[in-house]
Amino acid sequence: MSDMTAAGQDVRIETDSLGEVAVPAHVHWGAQTQRSIVNFPIGGEKMPPALVRALGIQKLAAAKANMKLGVLDTKLGEAIVAAAREVIDGTLADQFPLVVWQTGSGTQSNMNANEVIASRANEMLTGNKGGKSPVHPNDHCNMGQSSNDTFPTAMHIAAASEALDHLIPALQKLHGALDAKAQEFADIVKIGRTHLQDATPMTLGQEFSGYAKQVEYGITRVRAALPRVLELAQGGTAVGTGINAKVGFDVAFAAEAAAETGHAFVTAPNKFEALAAHDAMVEISGALNVLAVSLMKIANDIRLLGSGPRSGLGELSLPANEPGSSIMPGKVNPTQCEAMTMVAAQVMGNHMTVTVAGSHGHLELNVFKPVIIYNVLQSMKLLGDASHAFTDNCVVGIEANMDRITQLLNESLMLVTALNPHIGYDNAAKIAKKAHAEGTTLKAAALALGLLTEEQFAEWVVPADMIRPRD
Amino acid sequence: MSDMTAAGQDVRIETDSLGEVAVPAHVHWGAQTQRSIVNFPIGGEKMPPALVRALGIQKLAAAKANMKLGVLDTKLGEAIVAAAREVIDGTLADQFPLVVWQTGSGTQSNMNANEVIASRANEMLTGNKGGKSPVHPNDHCNMGQSSNDTFPTAMHIAAASEALDHLIPALQKLHGALDAKAQEFADIVKIGRTHLQDATPMTLGQEFSGYAKQVEYGITRVRAALPRVLELAQGGTAVGTGINAKVGFDVAFAAEAAAETGHAFVTAPNKFEALAAHDAMVEISGALNVLAVSLMKIANDIRLLGSGPRSGLGELSLPANEPGSSIMPGKVNPTQCEAMTMVAAQVMGNHMTVTVAGSHGHLELNVFKPVIIYNVLQSMKLLGDASHAFTDNCVVGIEANMDRITQLLNESLMLVTALNPHIGYDNAAKIAKKAHAEGTTLKAAALALGLLTEEQFAEWVVPADMIRPRD
Amino acid sequence: MSDMTAAGQDVRIETDSLGEVAVPAHVHWGAQTQRSIVNFPIGGEKMPPALVRALGIQKLAAAKANMKLGVLDTKLGEAIVAAAREVIDGTLADQFPLVVWQTGSGTQSNMNANEVIASRANEMLTGNKGGKSPVHPNDHCNMGQSSNDTFPTAMHIAAASEALDHLIPALQKLHGALDAKAQEFADIVKIGRTHLQDATPMTLGQEFSGYAKQVEYGITRVRAALPRVLELAQGGTAVGTGINAKVGFDVAFAAEAAAETGHAFVTAPNKFEALAAHDAMVEISGALNVLAVSLMKIANDIRLLGSGPRSGLGELSLPANEPGSSIMPGKVNPTQCEAMTMVAAQVMGNHMTVTVAGSHGHLELNVFKPVIIYNVLQSMKLLGDASHAFTDNCVVGIEANMDRITQLLNESLMLVTALNPHIGYDNAAKIAKKAHAEGTTLKAAALALGLLTEEQFAEWVVPADMIRPRD
Amino acid sequence: MSDMTAAGQDVRIETDSLGEVAVPAHVHWGAQTQRSIVNFPIGGEKMPPALVRALGIQKLAAAKANMKLGVLDTKLGEAIVAAAREVIDGTLADQFPLVVWQTGSGTQSNMNANEVIASRANEMLTGNKGGKSPVHPNDHCNMGQSSNDTFPTAMHIAAASEALDHLIPALQKLHGALDAKAQEFADIVKIGRTHLQDATPMTLGQEFSGYAKQVEYGITRVRAALPRVLELAQGGTAVGTGINAKVGFDVAFAAEAAAETGHAFVTAPNKFEALAAHDAMVEISGALNVLAVSLMKIANDIRLLGSGPRSGLGELSLPANEPGSSIMPGKVNPTQCEAMTMVAAQVMGNHMTVTVAGSHGHLELNVFKPVIIYNVLQSMKLLGDASHAFTDNCVVGIEANMDRITQLLNESLMLVTALNPHIGYDNAAKIAKKAHAEGTTLKAAALALGLLTEEQFAEWVVPADMIRPRD
Repeated sequence: MSDMTAAGQDVRIETDSLGEVAVPAHVHWGAQTQRSIVNFPIGGEKMPPALVRALGIQKLAAAKANMKLGVLDTKLGEAIVAAAREVIDGTLADQFPLVVWQTGSGTQSNMNANEVIASRANEMLTGNKGGKSPVHPNDHCNMGQSSNDTFPTAMHIAAASEALDHLIPALQKLHGALDAKAQEFADIVKIGRTHLQDATPMTLGQEFSGYAKQVEYGITRVRAALPRVLELAQGGTAVGTGINAKVGFDVAFAAEAAAETGHAFVTAPNKFEALAAHDAMVEISGALNVLAVSLMKIANDIRLLGSGPRSGLGELSLPANEPGSSIMPGKVNPTQCEAMTMVAAQVMGNHMTVTVAGSHGHLELNVFKPVIIYNVLQSMKLLGDASHAFTDNCVVGIEANMDRITQLLNESLMLVTALNPHIGYDNAAKIAKKAHAEGTTLKAAALALGLLTEEQFAEWVVPADMIRPRD
Repeated sequence: MSDMTAAGQDVRIETDSLGEVAVPAHVHWGAQTQRSIVNFPIGGEKMPPALVRALGIQKLAAAKANMKLGVLDTKLGEAIVAAAREVIDGTLADQFPLVVWQTGSGTQSNMNANEVIASRANEMLTGNKGGKSPVHPNDHCNMGQSSNDTFPTAMHIAAASEALDHLIPALQKLHGALDAKAQEFADIVKIGRTHLQDATPMTLGQEFSGYAKQVEYGITRVRAALPRVLELAQGGTAVGTGINAKVGFDVAFAAEAAAETGHAFVTAPNKFEALAAHDAMVEISGALNVLAVSLMKIANDIRLLGSGPRSGLGELSLPANEPGSSIMPGKVNPTQCEAMTMVAAQVMGNHMTVTVAGSHGHLELNVFKPVIIYNVLQSMKLLGDASHAFTDNCVVGIEANMDRITQLLNESLMLVTALNPHIGYDNAAKIAKKAHAEGTTLKAAALALGLLTEEQFAEWVVPADMIRPRD
Repeated sequence: MSDMTAAGQDVRIETDSLGEVAVPAHVHWGAQTQRSIVNFPIGGEKMPPALVRALGIQKLAAAKANMKLGVLDTKLGEAIVAAAREVIDGTLADQFPLVVWQTGSGTQSNMNANEVIASRANEMLTGNKGGKSPVHPNDHCNMGQSSNDTFPTAMHIAAASEALDHLIPALQKLHGALDAKAQEFADIVKIGRTHLQDATPMTLGQEFSGYAKQVEYGITRVRAALPRVLELAQGGTAVGTGINAKVGFDVAFAAEAAAETGHAFVTAPNKFEALAAHDAMVEISGALNVLAVSLMKIANDIRLLGSGPRSGLGELSLPANEPGSSIMPGKVNPTQCEAMTMVAAQVMGNHMTVTVAGSHGHLELNVFKPVIIYNVLQSMKLLGDASHAFTDNCVVGIEANMDRITQLLNESLMLVTALNPHIGYDNAAKIAKKAHAEGTTLKAAALALGLLTEEQFAEWVVPADMIRPRD
Repeated sequence: MSDMTAAGQDVRIETDSLGEVAVPAHVHWGAQTQRSIVNFPIGGEKMPPALVRALGIQKLAAAKANMKLGVLDTKLGEAIVAAAREVIDGTLADQFPLVVWQTGSGTQSNMNANEVIASRANEMLTGNKGGKSPVHPNDHCNMGQSSNDTFPTAMHIAAASEALDHLIPALQKLHGALDAKAQEFADIVKIGRTHLQDATPMTLGQEFSGYAKQVEYGITRVRAALPRVLELAQGGTAVGTGINAKVGFDVAFAAEAAAETGHAFVTAPNKFEALAAHDAMVEISGALNVLAVSLMKIANDIRLLGSGPRSGLGELSLPANEPGSSIMPGKVNPTQCEAMTMVAAQVMGNHMTVTVAGSHGHLELNVFKPVIIYNVLQSMKLLGDASHAFTDNCVVGIEANMDRITQLLNESLMLVTALNPHIGYDNAAKIAKKAHAEGTTLKAAALALGLLTEEQFAEWVVPADMIRPRD
């Protein structure tokens, strides 16, 4: 086992069903964690902290449920609960060294949790780290459990918690900021644009109300996916049948998980589906994908409207947070929009990873679990963090450039649309085309064509009247 | 305009705001449709029939709403309704020659509908095709409308109808067939497999119950996305403000659309979002993507379980519908699984197209409308059709190969899992490893190791007891 | 078999290894094609014409090679060649009714070709359609072949031919048009934009030279993928070993295929890879994906530069090919850009479909062949067609709006960059910020700050000198 | 500026064009890096080490080129070179705190490099960290450069180096191991499988030769994409024109970069393309995507062939590196296959991110640079690392289970294919179907049908003769 740790390091001998493994003396993890470190030197992406925390919650809830069901000795169980609490609190964060690119069931991270919690519990009870007594990683920490139901349970706990505790609040803040701008800009009449071409007028507030609506629906979509995420696989054990779990463990576990987190977790009605497929993850990733699409549009629009300062659309001024260029002095760029759109691109790609991974399950188990949860949690964190930064450092500071907005509005040819009900589409088109060709105003063209009087033009072509249906 | 149609063809002269265009004398379409034919010789993918039908519904509902609001002359309105009815019925299917790859607002297909309906209405009223009188394509057929609200309205009508009238019924049928198999196979105990490796027992019915659950949730997911799809953009007109529409038109229109289809359409609460973004399409495409993931898993599992006949898993017999090989006589292949998994791959890709297209909107209009609805409707049709074929030609005919199932179950080493609660994980592992290394039975290995008695083995290792939690 | 065709239809009885099947009397196809029609009522996407043509080429080349090797009777072989020629010419297009969503090996379409060619050959030889004598669909048309090597061979023939005969010429035309614009606009100095913000000057020709380069590299990328596509699986037969093919058949076949098409086809050096994987298709789809990315950028830029006419960037005028709006009179939209960007979105999604389908092969055969070639050919056709339309109806007619370009250039603050080498970045930044804050010109700000003289400004800030490195 | 650092921390005041910023006294970075830390608290993904190293190479090469061109003072230049060398060596790794989710041009990371190198150079020259004298971050470290050409240059240097120094060697090792297995297993005749159904025989060596070929072509594909990656944007400066760079800087720079890395870097022939698009990144990501597809197939096949031990295909034994289950004692799983297939899923998703990001460029600059290089480098590292682990911990230890292989071969019905040339496809099919229906051997069925003699069967049905074409 000398190849398992660096020469000269203080080690402790741990065992598993394949034999002995030397682990560093100062760590809590055991044989199986150490094997994974050695066998999977791939990338550097550690299991996400939110997932490690969820494994702590899972071990805590399992121990509590097993104690309630009378199958786990209370002294051992309480030690497990205390150690699991440290995992939840992050105190033992450095005891989870494993990367995402390990076994596809997450078995090694489940064993990492079992080993660390058993070691810490043993340390509490005996003063010594490691080993399997009095608390055994499998027989006690993993009692009535399999990695096959434990890891997906942790996935769901992590995803639901990240959605409810981080992502949705961030989106609500962004929604609030966009909605406030919609109110603030409610009376600013501007030119609308379709096909990137000048179109009929609208208010800047109306424009922002569309963005706010997109974010509002984005929250709705995440919530709509949550019922399946709130279902927990725990109790299915190895293949979904629940072998070796105590009858009632699944329900008792879900109740403990709900109590611990404050979220409405329930036991999955069909454990076979819950182990073999991760459709619920693909589903919520789909909701994140819509958010990415929405935020790509919103951030892109805002930088378009803020383009300039002199050669762009120039209707908005965005906050100048940093020097924009290492070569062009005085340049300021829409950097928050750029961070947000990069996040959007990442989330779309993560969604493809989750889709591919979700589609490749075989029989009783999908073995793409770590890559699925890694991507779902990354997407949630990025969307949440970026929503905060985008709100704080961009949206709240957006200002309307009134001079520019008014100038563009008044020059627009598409005000001619207001004439349709009065002189018909074909005549209106003649006016617009003449004004465009000759570089004149609509009024000049209209009068030259003799299609209406100056008074009629003044009465009919009123931008402020063009922002709603006609009575 | 002689370049607009083939030489020597009987033509009729139509006009639009750019001038005159010759169209074939026998068709109903007009100048703008003809220009699109000439300017977009790209691919061969026509606007989907479900979308053309939805345009018929849209024009019908708009005419009815405008008549109710008193802004459309009843005689003209009724003629429009009658002509639109023929579009809905498919009678005028050959009058919609345009491809998907046209203007991104679908303006040309909206004008195609306006032109055809005006022409047919004029023909009903005057005996003559074409022209703009008495029914004008823009002023009457398109009254109070813009392509920018009309086309997304047709998209939503088409998608909701395809989901509710075709896809969900097909999925319900598939769910029923899988669920029936779950019942039929409820007492067949077999080996479970995780990581494609032998695991603990389960029933074949439990295995199929997981598939049934996936499809059940698939239906739930489509339904969860429908509320946003049932919202209609109509009434937003050019940029979402409703310019030139009569106040109340949006609500009246949605009521007519609901009455015509029997589906619960409502007017979109924010028309700016409804024109500028197609998040609702990305969302429902995400639900279709989960279905693709689920069906990939199910069909792949079924061909794995049916692999053989002699060198595979061989637990299932699938119906032999065709000779399987042009070179290997007597070969039968899981062809329905293959069609289904190809459909799944297509739907996943379509979802990426919809995602990309949905993310590229600019300001007041997303101009990827035709490609979005083409992909959403193709995905729905393929998933629905394939669910029917897979059910009829595969699922209902699946049979369990009892001899094979029983043989594999009895040989399995993972029955050792039942010993964990009695002798502990580590001892149980010793038995399994010994039996594997020596090619013997678990019982022989267990007795040789002296870890339990023959009576204990007989009492504890009972596959039929291993398919549920312990009491 | 009465359920195989509609009641009352004139039928002919054909047989395969599963028994008798009634087929319509007037068609050439036989039992297996008919079974596929009945068993796969999915979607409406027929096997692409380019693939059917390639199957004709494949059968022709196989017959010629078998005759050369002396294993196929010349009289039968020549009849097969003559019938295959009709498939190549498209004369028998209506004899290929099968959809993409069939068996994943394409066996049914291979048998469709075998049946149609045998029937037509028999008709030539005997006056009667159908049957298996004197020409047998399997023993003669499929001699020394399997669907497993035939269908991928047809895939490669179709893809290489579409790339070389359609896509690359279309891209060359587009490249030529963009390059011509780069020349035409070589002396027009304009403002550059980075982050959508004003940047330093460049020429419009330089801007277009970037687009031309992207397309040029796009052609290079397709060519770089072709060597693997030009490798043919034929000769691998059922699993790659070549069982039942005559030694030398693979090489002889490739030579015939090359002679027939004029393309440099060779036999694949490893037939196992060629049947079991479609990496070459994923690879060339990746090249198409880069083209989609490039064309999305180019078309999007062009509509940005052409945005307006009065409230956008307005530097370019695009051809006005159609009325742009059904509600806004006189509006003209960048419709060719929209068709192109929709095509780009489709190609990106198709690439995901091909990727997923390519990744799901099992052991000796990938059974996603039809969906892979359907998507690759659709992408190629759309990119080729759209390149033609975009060139003809947009690029060649693009005009520069000199007044607008000059106005924007002269107003720009980023001309300040030219001062870096003279007064340093930090001082230059002060000038730009002052001018921006006060709405003045750079010169005014520079002089007010006392950082340089009027003469120095005139000497140093010359846009036309800012479009190249300094001496 | 007190909000820029935690209260009570020792700070140093740095400035940029927006004003003063307090930075921690002990760090080398300056004002702009500090602003980015504060403004972009998004995710935790730092700029990849390979990219930071490439920035070091870029600054070193730029300083050398500027000295050669006589525009950079040698004393300052040599200090920059010395400091850049420390960035390359990784000594200053902790001075690069910025995340991927910042400005899309990578300006802040370019400035991070400029600030750190200037500070370290100043420290070498004066003993004091930070500041702008004698070495100025912009005027000297960034001399003749813009982030807009610098960052893409670093992207290309990083990607080419990672491909050539890490990925390709790893793939070569994997190829070697697969090829060695192909040789080792050259004489093991086994059953082939198509559609997951039994097919004709082949050797296990032939099967592995297909895998080896896929990896070989994978290397070819990466190499085929490298010519565009080896082109460097440096010299284009702000918008591609080269403003403020010395004539000849681009060529001189590329020569220095090539000398430093040993890779064949050249200056990009069109700098506008090189800044505004990242098609070369999308292209090489496409090559990585094909690798992902190939490795998904290979790893999936190997776990299928290794499935069991008693209820699967069982033809291969994979190394048992870890206990496989926390609940099923003695279980061993194909964990390396699982890590590899998870990596494959990640790479496919990363490719979508790169595709989306590549498609969203605007005019003179694509501002998705950090997310693009983050994904490309992650894909390369994961594929390289996983290839090493998969080779070392799986491929080299794969063993053939001869008993199982021989048993399955002899039982197969598809040996009947060998009879096609002798008795025709239809008769052969009758034999196979009879044997399947009655559960007998092919020989028994053949004799019972009277289609051939026992001697003929023995002569014609020889598996070892069925693994190649017939003479």
